[in-house]
Amino acid sequence: MIPEIFSHRSIRSYLPEPVPEEVLRRILEAGVRASTTGNMQLYSLVVTTSPEIKERLAPCHFNQPMVTQAPVVITFCADIRRFSLWCRQRGAEPQYDNFVWFVNSMIDTILASQNIVLQAENEGLGICYLGTTTYNAQEIAEVLGLPEGVIPVTTLTMGYPDKMPPLTDRLPLEGVVHRERYHDYTPEQIERIWAEREASEETAGLLEVNQLSNLARIFTERRYTGKDNLLFSRKYFDALKKQGFFNQ
Amino acid sequence: MIPEIFSHRSIRSYLPEPVPEEVLRRILEAGVRASTTGNMQLYSLVVTTSPEIKERLAPCHFNQPMVTQAPVVITFCADIRRFSLWCRQRGAEPQYDNFVWFVNSMIDTILASQNIVLQAENEGLGICYLGTTTYNAQEIAEVLGLPEGVIPVTTLTMGYPDKMPPLTDRLPLEGVVHRERYHDYTPEQIERIWAEREASEETAGLLEVNQLSNLARIFTERRYTGKDNLLFSRKYFDALKKQGFFNQ
Repeated sequence: MIPEIFSHRSIRSYLPEPVPEEVLRRILEAGVRASTTGNMQLYSLVVTTSPEIKERLAPCHFNQPMVTQAPVVITFCADIRRFSLWCRQRGAEPQYDNFVWFVNSMIDTILASQNIVLQAENEGLGICYLGTTTYNAQEIAEVLGLPEGVIPVTTLTMGYPDKMPPLTDRLPLEGVVHRERYHDYTPEQIERIWAEREASEETAGLLEVNQLSNLARIFTERRYTGKDNLLFSRKYFDALKKQGFFNQ
Repeated sequence: MIPEIFSHRSIRSYLPEPVPEEVLRRILEAGVRASTTGNMQLYSLVVTTSPEIKERLAPCHFNQPMVTQAPVVITFCADIRRFSLWCRQRGAEPQYDNFVWFVNSMIDTILASQNIVLQAENEGLGICYLGTTTYNAQEIAEVLGLPEGVIPVTTLTMGYPDKMPPLTDRLPLEGVVHRERYHDYTPEQIERIWAEREASEETAGLLEVNQLSNLARIFTERRYTGKDNLLFSRKYFDALKKQGFFNQ
């Protein structure tokens, strides 16, 4: 068993120590060893340690304190630009500025990110993925100077953990695995899949704080509301077109 | 260092031995330990071992022999359905059928897949990602019976390796890492980044076989042509709409 996989938790609070350059290099090397479409490596990893640039990134991530506190922030970008520049320089005509290549390059990017997470944890570091990256991708692109053909997909904050939170629960494996084909969920299965989480002390605490009758409503009425979802969908799709991933 | 990360290669040929159920279970458990947006686990893993269903999947993957040869085929699907069913069952109104949640669920899905890859390799198995998943997503959805709110993102073939190919080369790390902000590529940098690969024996062999003047043209004129890219972009975007990820 790979211990890093089974002991992974998101770390949102870091010690001030910087990450030594040789450690950072091994971590980044881990990223590029991941599988990649046609060995094209359709990503760029923007490693930010400068306090000034982290300050400028922070509002893009709704000022979550870990963005400025973490010694290292890595913005993972889908990148069809580098490959396309190479093609043109060789008299070959690249046409990767379309949707399926956004998806392919995003897959490449996320595979690299997860290798980086596990190797970072192997080096004693902690990380947190920032889902806010897709909400404010265009703003991040401006801060980091991302040209056409490059779009942010996710971000990691990284540093030595200040404290180690408990492992987060997951749905029962049977709730997410289907054998042979997809078997649609019956209402009884849905009940069973969420039963343990809904009965937990953590959920009871959340309901109390949010003054809501159930956990699902915390998601739909507080965390990820319809209005926000539509706003961020439009923003990310606009960013996709603006950064040149939807010429079709 | 995590050895599985640094020794990863795609395995396209497998021994006939099946994967024991307890091994498969550990591997799948590794998948669900990955980070996930708001702990929502927006994915379903469809594990196919039945020869008949693998036969039906094979044409969706251009009949690459490993689809029927591998004892296990896992189709990784972005899934907003299970979460939405739960919300509705609780009187909460989910609105996750839009683009940013396609992206979020895709990130969840790919993170799980890479944990599964590394744990599988830790168990002595070999894997290959099938990029063909995004080309024929709708056809795969039909074979696997994927309902609205579920779309295939990637596929792994998995089994005990028949032979171990050499490690694949990668671009120099400096070619994909940017410090602080994105630094656009000069023509000289593009030359340097691809120099080693272009000078390799492998490239020489490919040019000979393809009767083309350079490696970039093999990509644009043989492997991933403009015509195919546009076709598959339209197909995947249509599948996205049909499966209910673009109601905005």
